[in-house]
Amino acid sequence: MADEFVLYGYFRSSAAFRARIALNLKGIKPELRFIHLLKDGGQQHTPDYKALNPQELIPALVHDGHTITQSLAIIEYLDEIVPEPPLLPRDALGRERVREIAYAIACDIHPVNNLRVNQYLKRVFHADGAAQIAWQRHWIATGFAALETMLARSGVRGAYCYGDTPTLADICLIPQMANARRVELDLAPYPTLRRIEETALGLPAFDAALPKNQPDAE
Amino acid sequence: MADEFVLYGYFRSSAAFRARIALNLKGIKPELRFIHLLKDGGQQHTPDYKALNPQELIPALVHDGHTITQSLAIIEYLDEIVPEPPLLPRDALGRERVREIAYAIACDIHPVNNLRVNQYLKRVFHADGAAQIAWQRHWIATGFAALETMLARSGVRGAYCYGDTPTLADICLIPQMANARRVELDLAPYPTLRRIEETALGLPAFDAALPKNQPDAE
Repeated sequence: MADEFVLYGYFRSSAAFRARIALNLKGIKPELRFIHLLKDGGQQHTPDYKALNPQELIPALVHDGHTITQSLAIIEYLDEIVPEPPLLPRDALGRERVREIAYAIACDIHPVNNLRVNQYLKRVFHADGAAQIAWQRHWIATGFAALETMLARSGVRGAYCYGDTPTLADICLIPQMANARRVELDLAPYPTLRRIEETALGLPAFDAALPKNQPDAE
Repeated sequence: MADEFVLYGYFRSSAAFRARIALNLKGIKPELRFIHLLKDGGQQHTPDYKALNPQELIPALVHDGHTITQSLAIIEYLDEIVPEPPLLPRDALGRERVREIAYAIACDIHPVNNLRVNQYLKRVFHADGAAQIAWQRHWIATGFAALETMLARSGVRGAYCYGDTPTLADICLIPQMANARRVELDLAPYPTLRRIEETALGLPAFDAALPKNQPDAE
């Protein structure tokens, strides 16, 4: 591999946050390009970026000329081309458990709260700032309640969502926790999630990926 | 493997539809249990089902006593324990392309249109039936426009989303097409998607998984 990586991201995007964690864990330092989701009517909607990603969403990772979109596809891809350290367990049932947690966040919480959904709520249903915050808290709380049960009852104990090393599940959880804190969701009901967050943020790969530690942070 | 499979589903759920297609493609005939999403205030919310799946969503697949939730996790798991026919390409970039399409549907279209989201729109924003249909059409049209571009420009030509055999991408696309038809979205702008749908529905594995062909269909 010539191994040239370019990451298109935005400091506050939790999908870009996931990609940053995975790249850090794999020891890959991509060239960074910044797509401001609010400036210029949303730089993700410019013709240049739309040509790169027709979904007009971030992140996008370019690897040796191949454009890769969708944060989970990026992470599975990185895990296949750079196997160490593994981001998924070796056994089928373990891999299933990790993906189950990842999708419970990446499918059922995150997209429902995405910027464009909030913009639609405002435009069509006249949802004000407080209504948008209530919306976001509702879906995070619904998802976190299920996750807390899933993790607390899991047969696999460990420092992370699955065992004692970070996986795809933690890569999805930590950015979602950051979003929860941004809308000031009460995190008291989720002791397992908070414990895992504290552990993960002790790792440089997670800490360096935090929104506040990005060059485009405001 | 003792290979006892039990699928908890609902005829109209497109996530359950995905699981049915994958099971059919792998030649697995699970015992079927039906969770009616509207009766009894939603049977997915009963204590018994919530004990099985804390997310209170369908589908759930039980394999030899292990409960597996999240349709994409179910499909990746089935593909690992029953490798033939493969539902993902053999190479990392091919797998990435297929997952990218699958997630563009399973993350960015489907969950935003899910029943519980529409119920919130009605309860909090007083969205009537027409406003809910408009919401669903908007997110499907947004996603399909991107998918049409992604598939039409793909370097990989073939009868399906990726090549000449069905993959995880088609397993996500066909149920989403069914949802699009249910809300009477104009599908004229998506000739590639329609062509793939027609091809896939020619396969018994897809046809038998259609909502109208389920024992609990109304």
